[in-house]
Amino acid sequence: MRGAVIHGAGDVRFEERPDPRIIEPTDAVIGTVAACVCGSDLWRYRGIAPVPRPTPIGHEYVGVVEQVGDAVSTVQPGDFVVGGFLHSDNTCAVCAKGMHANCLHGGGYDGCQAEKIRIPNADGTLLATPGQPDADLIPSLLSLSDVLCTGWHAAVAAGVQPGSSVVVVGDGAVGLSGVLAAAQLGAGTIIAMSRHADRQVVAKDFGATHLVAERGEDGLARVRELTDGIGADAVLECVGTEQARAEAVGYARPGGMIGLVGVPHGDLPTDEIFWANKGVRGGPAPVRAYLPHLLDLVLRRQIDPGRVFDLTLPLSEVAEAYRAMDERRAIKVLLQP
Amino acid sequence: MRGAVIHGAGDVRFEERPDPRIIEPTDAVIGTVAACVCGSDLWRYRGIAPVPRPTPIGHEYVGVVEQVGDAVSTVQPGDFVVGGFLHSDNTCAVCAKGMHANCLHGGGYDGCQAEKIRIPNADGTLLATPGQPDADLIPSLLSLSDVLCTGWHAAVAAGVQPGSSVVVVGDGAVGLSGVLAAAQLGAGTIIAMSRHADRQVVAKDFGATHLVAERGEDGLARVRELTDGIGADAVLECVGTEQARAEAVGYARPGGMIGLVGVPHGDLPTDEIFWANKGVRGGPAPVRAYLPHLLDLVLRRQIDPGRVFDLTLPLSEVAEAYRAMDERRAIKVLLQP
Repeated sequence: MRGAVIHGAGDVRFEERPDPRIIEPTDAVIGTVAACVCGSDLWRYRGIAPVPRPTPIGHEYVGVVEQVGDAVSTVQPGDFVVGGFLHSDNTCAVCAKGMHANCLHGGGYDGCQAEKIRIPNADGTLLATPGQPDADLIPSLLSLSDVLCTGWHAAVAAGVQPGSSVVVVGDGAVGLSGVLAAAQLGAGTIIAMSRHADRQVVAKDFGATHLVAERGEDGLARVRELTDGIGADAVLECVGTEQARAEAVGYARPGGMIGLVGVPHGDLPTDEIFWANKGVRGGPAPVRAYLPHLLDLVLRRQIDPGRVFDLTLPLSEVAEAYRAMDERRAIKVLLQP
Repeated sequence: MRGAVIHGAGDVRFEERPDPRIIEPTDAVIGTVAACVCGSDLWRYRGIAPVPRPTPIGHEYVGVVEQVGDAVSTVQPGDFVVGGFLHSDNTCAVCAKGMHANCLHGGGYDGCQAEKIRIPNADGTLLATPGQPDADLIPSLLSLSDVLCTGWHAAVAAGVQPGSSVVVVGDGAVGLSGVLAAAQLGAGTIIAMSRHADRQVVAKDFGATHLVAERGEDGLARVRELTDGIGADAVLECVGTEQARAEAVGYARPGGMIGLVGVPHGDLPTDEIFWANKGVRGGPAPVRAYLPHLLDLVLRRQIDPGRVFDLTLPLSEVAEAYRAMDERRAIKVLLQP
C-alpha cells in the first residue's frame, strides 16, 4: 500500500509502504476512507520538532474494517468506523476515569495518512456507524478523530457550562472546534480571537458571539470590555506557543480556568496563575470518552464540525496538503485515498 | 498600642505602634482577642523573602469591634467578629464570582499580630457571631481567618467530591486543615504525607485514612498502591517549594487535579502536567466565600479545626512564637494580647 512519510522539515513524500496486518488478536486493519493533516503535524514539517529518521505520519482517520483479530468483538469487516488519534483499551483504571489518551495500554499508530491502517485495541478504540454513512457526513465523521474532540476537551477542561463567558485562542481547526464545543455546552459569550476573514465566518457559524482581531494590550482590553471588566470564566488555548499560552492566561478572570490543548512549546506564567487564582487543565484529548456523544450529534446532523475542512485533495497529493496548511492557504485539508 | 514588627530575618519585635483609627467610612477597628503566626510569615523570618524595612506583621485575627465608620452596617461595637487574611468588598464583579482574595478593592492589613487592628471593607470582610462565643471555641474561630479556609480552598480547587481519592502534601496547619476539608467534602481515601508523630495524630483525627511517611520514589509507590496503581483524583499542595509541587503533581492520576495553596517558591513541571492531562488550580483562599458555611460548622461544633494550635503564648512573646514554629517545636502558635 502507499502512505505519507516525513523525511525532514518541508519533506513529506507519498511512498510504497508494507501492508499493515493483524499482529495482536485485539487488532483491526482498516481501509482508509478519509485522513487529514493536523496542525500538530506542522511542528515537524516546519522543523520545530525533530525528524530523526523517515517516519510514517498522520493520526486521523475514518475507514472500513477489512480484517479483525480473534479477540475483536465489537466491529467486523465491512463496518464503517471512527476512532481517535490514540488507541485505548477502554477498560484500564485510567480509561475508567475517562482519560483514554493516557490509557495504560494505549499508544499511537504507524502513520494514518495511508491507504490502510493497523488499529491496535480495536474494541476500545473504534465505534462503528449504523450502516454506511452518507458521503456528505465524511468530513464531520473524520473531525471526530482529533480536531472536534480536541476542541471539545479544551472546553470541558476549562469547565465551560451554561452561561459561561469563553475566549478561544487560536482560529485553526481546533480553535474553531472549541467555539463549536463552547456553544454546544451552553456558553453565553464566546469570543473568538481571530483575524482571518475565512475563519471568522466559520467561527460565527459555529456560535462565536464576538470576534476580536486585536492582540496584546488591545486584545486584552477588548476581552475585558466584553466580560464585566474582569476577564472570561473559561479560556480555550488551542495554539501552544509561549505567547499564545501567556495571552490565554491573561484573558481569564480571577478564578477562571484555562483549558490547554495546544501542543506545548513554551512555559506557562505559573506565578501569575497562582496569585490570580486561575487554573490550567488539559492535554491530549480522550477521544473515546467523547466519541459516543459527538458521533450521535454528527449522525443526527445537530453539528457540522466538518466545515473546518476547506480543501480536499487525493492522498497522493499529501505533500501539497502540507504546503497548503503551512502557508495558511487552507484551515485543514481532507485527504482521500 | 503594641504589636509585632519584623525587622529582618530572625528578628521579630513586640513594639509600641500608633493606635489604628477609622480612615474610610467603611472601616472598623477591632480589639484583638487572638492572633497567630502563619507558615507564610516564616518565609520572611527565614530570610527567603526580603524585609526591605521594619514592617508590622501578621494577617490572622479574631476580635471584638471597638469602632466602625459611618458606612458600616453589618457589625457594630461589641460584636465578636471573624474575618479573612485579606479584606474584600464582597460586592465587586470578582467577589460575585466567589474569588474574594482577588477583590477589585481588597487588600491586606497593617499587621494583625497586634492589640488592635484596622479592618477596611468591614461589611464585606467580617462576620459577627451570635453573642460572645465560648472561650474554648476561640482557636477554631481563629483558624477561619486563614488556615482552615486555605486548606478548604485546596480541596475545592482540586475538585474533591464524595468518594474522591486525595493526597495531602504538607503536614503543617494548612495541610492538616486540608485533610479536614477533604473529609468534610466526602473523600473516600485521604492520604496524609506526614512523618511527624504529633501531626500524624491530628491528621488521623481530622479524617486521614492513610499516613505515608516515605518521600521520592518510595512515597510515589505507596500512593499508587493505595490508588488502583494510577495516583489520586485530587492532590492538595500545602507547602509551595519546587520539590513539594513536583511531588504533588506526581501523586495525581492522569486527569487528576492538584489544588495549589502553598505560597509558590519554585516552578511547576508544566509539560508533565499537560501530557498526563493533569490540572492545577488554586491560590490565596477566598475566605469570605467559605466563611458562612465554615463558621456555622464551628459554632455547631461539627468540626474542631483549632486543634492545629498546639502552643499558646502571650502576644508579648511573639518572638518566641516565631522561634517555636521555625524550629518545628509547634505546628501553629496562638497569641493572646
